[in-house]
Amino acid sequence: MSSEVVEDEISSFFESSPPLKNMDGIIKKLNRFIKLNSSSRGENHQSDWREEDRVCVTSGGTTVPLEQRCVRYIDNFSSGNRGAASTDSCITFGSCETSCYGPPSLADGRLLKLPFSTIYEYLQMLRLIATALKDVGSCSMFYLAAAVSDFYVPWESMTEHKIESGSGPLDIRLAQVPKMLSILRSNWAPNAFCISFKLETDSKILIEKATKALQKYKVHAVVASELSTRKEEVVVVSSSGNVVVRRDCDKPDESIVEYNLIRLIVDRHSTYIKESHS
Amino acid sequence: MSSEVVEDEISSFFESSPPLKNMDGIIKKLNRFIKLNSSSRGENHQSDWREEDRVCVTSGGTTVPLEQRCVRYIDNFSSGNRGAASTDSCITFGSCETSCYGPPSLADGRLLKLPFSTIYEYLQMLRLIATALKDVGSCSMFYLAAAVSDFYVPWESMTEHKIESGSGPLDIRLAQVPKMLSILRSNWAPNAFCISFKLETDSKILIEKATKALQKYKVHAVVASELSTRKEEVVVVSSSGNVVVRRDCDKPDESIVEYNLIRLIVDRHSTYIKESHS
Repeated sequence: MSSEVVEDEISSFFESSPPLKNMDGIIKKLNRFIKLNSSSRGENHQSDWREEDRVCVTSGGTTVPLEQRCVRYIDNFSSGNRGAASTDSCITFGSCETSCYGPPSLADGRLLKLPFSTIYEYLQMLRLIATALKDVGSCSMFYLAAAVSDFYVPWESMTEHKIESGSGPLDIRLAQVPKMLSILRSNWAPNAFCISFKLETDSKILIEKATKALQKYKVHAVVASELSTRKEEVVVVSSSGNVVVRRDCDKPDESIVEYNLIRLIVDRHSTYIKESHS
Repeated sequence: MSSEVVEDEISSFFESSPPLKNMDGIIKKLNRFIKLNSSSRGENHQSDWREEDRVCVTSGGTTVPLEQRCVRYIDNFSSGNRGAASTDSCITFGSCETSCYGPPSLADGRLLKLPFSTIYEYLQMLRLIATALKDVGSCSMFYLAAAVSDFYVPWESMTEHKIESGSGPLDIRLAQVPKMLSILRSNWAPNAFCISFKLETDSKILIEKATKALQKYKVHAVVASELSTRKEEVVVVSSSGNVVVRRDCDKPDESIVEYNLIRLIVDRHSTYIKESHS
């Protein structure tokens, strides 16, 4: 698909989306958060991040309403654990209200939670955040762990009231959600370090699909995992090869796979920043 | 639709459902609970129910998996509040794990929680409970506050793995969930007192639809509510006329609509039991 077609699809998605509630408030919060100077954030935190780094972690699932006054919606099983557990050493921008947490070390203004529920809210917020982070350049990171809906019902083709039952089977045509990763990389925040995630139930196609995503969206790494083993191991797929990351069973405090994953990603981001500045 | 066609649909729904996990365990729990003798339940509870009454309250929503190894599912916004709040003066059989609670007064063996998630689990459990309650006759009540899915994807037509994105729009054909109320009334527990619920977003059609449901399923009352005012008032639609039930704003302890609703339903059930025995 040509990039023009993709851009048209994206424009039409945003034009037809129900507008974000309290958009001005969100923009204010975001800008205040991005400008926080390092001295206001205390000295004792043990984060691996540099003070000037800004990381947008997305987490949890997005819902797809089937009716405008929504009674029914499509959801997915995402608990938001991946993003929440990863947040422990990140400054977070986006998170899912029901699933993400702010660990104590991040309580001193280093964490900004922006809750979302629908695919419309999620993508509008992602665009706001990416645009706001543009000037942070290579020091910004997108860690896109949210399970974003692949399909949605366009708002204008959605019934207003609850879908009636009683008249035979119901056919629903779901449109594809335009892939925002390309435009995030090319326009919204082209210098940001960008990590996407790929979850599959079929291990046979996992690495192949992650590799395709890496090439197609030009992200810096794709974290691939299989549903049944996702808490045990992930594969970080990047142009420098595939690295399997496992949880450390012997270290109780570090016995989540996200602990090792974040260490690897932080290293990669540091290298990326150095290369950008050289 | 003839009753034979309905029965065929219901049989084929159950035949194609993935079997309930731990069915034997559930049946044992149920039978033990139904046979509990009154002396084991303490003397000081303030319930309006007679010791021999058995009430099945259903609560929360049911999910509809879109894939066998489920990543995506259709859900509805139900919080389970109606059933949970109503449980306060009921002995409960069925409830939704995430939403129903057992108030302290019900802690002494007077509440049996049976969690469910999918439409398959819900309907199989409802059938088990109804069959187990058959001998309790008119002293049993079904208070069906759960928001049951109207449409589902038949298990055999469901894809095993996560639906692939990337190849255009997705068409989903959802079959109607067969209405189990008729068979519950006619076969499963024909002497039980049976209350169903109707929620609509469009107030114009609410009472008409509740009245139709009353006639079609031959339940004893339909509790009708509109989405936006459901916490303020409901209308109890029955053959003796429609009664509007509101919450008492002046009495803080009783300031939920379910408090007054349950009092009315208990009265109706008492009358029903007397008439059955005369």
